[in-house]
Amino acid sequence: MDLDMKQVDGGVCAAKGFSANGVNCGLNEDKNKNDLALILSERECTAAAVYTTNKVKGAPILVTKAHLKATGNKTRAVIANSKNANTCNADGEEKAQMMCELAAAELGIRPEEVIVASTGVIGQRLPIEPIRDHVKELAEGLSPENHGKAANAIMTTDTYAKETAVSFTIDGKTCTVGGMAKGSGMIHPNMATTLNFVTTDIAISSELIQKALSEIVKVTYNCLSIDGDTSTNDMVSIMANGMAGNTPITQEGEEYETFRKALYQVLMTLTRMLAKDGEGASKLLECTCNGAPDQDTAIIVAKSVIRSPLFKCAMFGEDANWGRILCAIGYAEADFDINKVDVDLASAKGCVAVCRNGAGVDFSEDEAKIILGEDEIYINIDLHQGESSAKAWGCDLTYDYVKINGDYRS
Amino acid sequence: MDLDMKQVDGGVCAAKGFSANGVNCGLNEDKNKNDLALILSERECTAAAVYTTNKVKGAPILVTKAHLKATGNKTRAVIANSKNANTCNADGEEKAQMMCELAAAELGIRPEEVIVASTGVIGQRLPIEPIRDHVKELAEGLSPENHGKAANAIMTTDTYAKETAVSFTIDGKTCTVGGMAKGSGMIHPNMATTLNFVTTDIAISSELIQKALSEIVKVTYNCLSIDGDTSTNDMVSIMANGMAGNTPITQEGEEYETFRKALYQVLMTLTRMLAKDGEGASKLLECTCNGAPDQDTAIIVAKSVIRSPLFKCAMFGEDANWGRILCAIGYAEADFDINKVDVDLASAKGCVAVCRNGAGVDFSEDEAKIILGEDEIYINIDLHQGESSAKAWGCDLTYDYVKINGDYRS
Repeated sequence: MDLDMKQVDGGVCAAKGFSANGVNCGLNEDKNKNDLALILSERECTAAAVYTTNKVKGAPILVTKAHLKATGNKTRAVIANSKNANTCNADGEEKAQMMCELAAAELGIRPEEVIVASTGVIGQRLPIEPIRDHVKELAEGLSPENHGKAANAIMTTDTYAKETAVSFTIDGKTCTVGGMAKGSGMIHPNMATTLNFVTTDIAISSELIQKALSEIVKVTYNCLSIDGDTSTNDMVSIMANGMAGNTPITQEGEEYETFRKALYQVLMTLTRMLAKDGEGASKLLECTCNGAPDQDTAIIVAKSVIRSPLFKCAMFGEDANWGRILCAIGYAEADFDINKVDVDLASAKGCVAVCRNGAGVDFSEDEAKIILGEDEIYINIDLHQGESSAKAWGCDLTYDYVKINGDYRS
Repeated sequence: MDLDMKQVDGGVCAAKGFSANGVNCGLNEDKNKNDLALILSERECTAAAVYTTNKVKGAPILVTKAHLKATGNKTRAVIANSKNANTCNADGEEKAQMMCELAAAELGIRPEEVIVASTGVIGQRLPIEPIRDHVKELAEGLSPENHGKAANAIMTTDTYAKETAVSFTIDGKTCTVGGMAKGSGMIHPNMATTLNFVTTDIAISSELIQKALSEIVKVTYNCLSIDGDTSTNDMVSIMANGMAGNTPITQEGEEYETFRKALYQVLMTLTRMLAKDGEGASKLLECTCNGAPDQDTAIIVAKSVIRSPLFKCAMFGEDANWGRILCAIGYAEADFDINKVDVDLASAKGCVAVCRNGAGVDFSEDEAKIILGEDEIYINIDLHQGESSAKAWGCDLTYDYVKINGDYRS
């Protein structure tokens, strides 16, 4: 991380002017687990979002898109629930719209100023009553201190809440970008969804914030693979309220680059958290591809390795099975010469070269086993045919993944 | 299967003029498991082959390609070993060539008339001595009765040998197509390879046999997904020796179509066997996509479902989790309207409609559980936007898959 960028507490409320809350409204039978989250900005925000590319799109995504379009990408609040994805239901959009109306009425804003998201089982109708009955309590509890309650409310099978934030300086003003995410856990028993909500107090144009978000998502969140399945409800949104007081960023340049770095830091940190907490995961895997002719090639190669079930099983087995890595590089759909490829395996315990020029090299299996015994493993690939790089993140494939996803609904 | 097509015994030796054998030459420490196979045709054959698309190609594939090129697609024999893939080794091509020379010397043919294949661990040098020391015994034991010994020799973690054959009539002559395959088992501990060897006594031109093989592989073997990993050594070859006595097929027409159907039957049967014996598999999954605008779309949709880890886990759990199927259809990279899609789940115990027009429909979970309790499950998708169809095959994702592929090399 850059020296001029500082990790700070506060997650989605770290930036000035944001408050949040989370409650259990009864969608989740466990009263100790929140299931309804709210984020509010004191002032109107410039917003941007990216959504799942799945043809099946959750109703909340359709409603959020319509709202951002109606307001010209302005927003004030986010309401999100877990336990029910509100997807593939005949009344899905109506219910998602009602969630926005309930939040807006309580907050004194317009429904179009609300972003809505849901995660959980698909194809089950969302009961609106629990949300209606708890939205007042939810709004009354809004506070910068309650970011953790909101982060808890969007969790499904996540084993911990995911929050991060960084501060930095632009124009002599302290600016902050913070976020929370829910992971690639499955909600009992349906598909993985990832939701990411990012807030910032920077002043920036809607064009540039969308550009930065799209570019950074491409190299962080879109380089995350838990199991290769793309959910119907995935969403990353960002809200910028301008309360840091910087001169608004309206063109690319030094300030924009600083913001971009901060956004990368936040989304990369959340991406790593999501990978590490992948279903059943015992290890975080970070694959770096250097020496690529272009960034797209680097991304394709790094993701191909991270996605390979055989490689993921080998990492679970702490087995330096480089042949599986080379195999996954070999079927990556990109144009490069496999005979120039080098591969190293590394962790906090050291680094071992396993492949040079596309062929195996002698290495100590004992040393490799020690390296792979760690819970964060780095796979470093050098294609030696260019200057571009990318990273991808994932986790090992374990018995628990199968258990979590194979258990029958009770 | 067509009424005029008859399942027959004999596997790779079912067609006239073919003999085979398999021995343990010592690559495999288990003396009861063969590791070296030989197939011989009495007469010169017209040959065709398709190979892995992985950029990393096993040395035997490079040598086989060169041989078929040198002879103008004529061949006489196949030599194949398990336990060592002879891939990513500096002396790989030299060793593969030596295998052909050893076989050719024993059989009194030219090395270029031999197809060679290997499956097993990659990146370990292939010792040629065990092969040299056993090639005489291997050749001496050649017999039409020993097809099973050859099928056994190419197995890795396959739990049973895979053989099939069909007979049919062309020109009043009985013709036969037979084959053997090794499965998507992993050799301890490396990557999955599938080898398929097909023989026939039909007389056909090399252009048409390659065309038929490429087209049929596209809709059978290439629609098989155990785990989404593409091996470095995959090969499907076919040898046609013309001993059935039919007038040689040199143009498309009724006779060609009959042959094509027989070849489909053989490769489809082997594909289903491979799917059913996928690593750790407890169920065969067959996904049919009907009503597609074109065949490529049908293939992409069917494969997308078969490949989804979440869906595969649900099938292991015998859970009628149609949301995961719709999700996988939704991220299939093809152009169609998700809102017209119907999905049924079926088995020998019945059929249940789970999705109509892209949304869930009420169904009996009890009935679904009974249907999914079977060991062959059919997922029937209708896109309702065209006349094209395709099938894809796979298996469920189980604890045993992770165990087989995660165990450390000892």
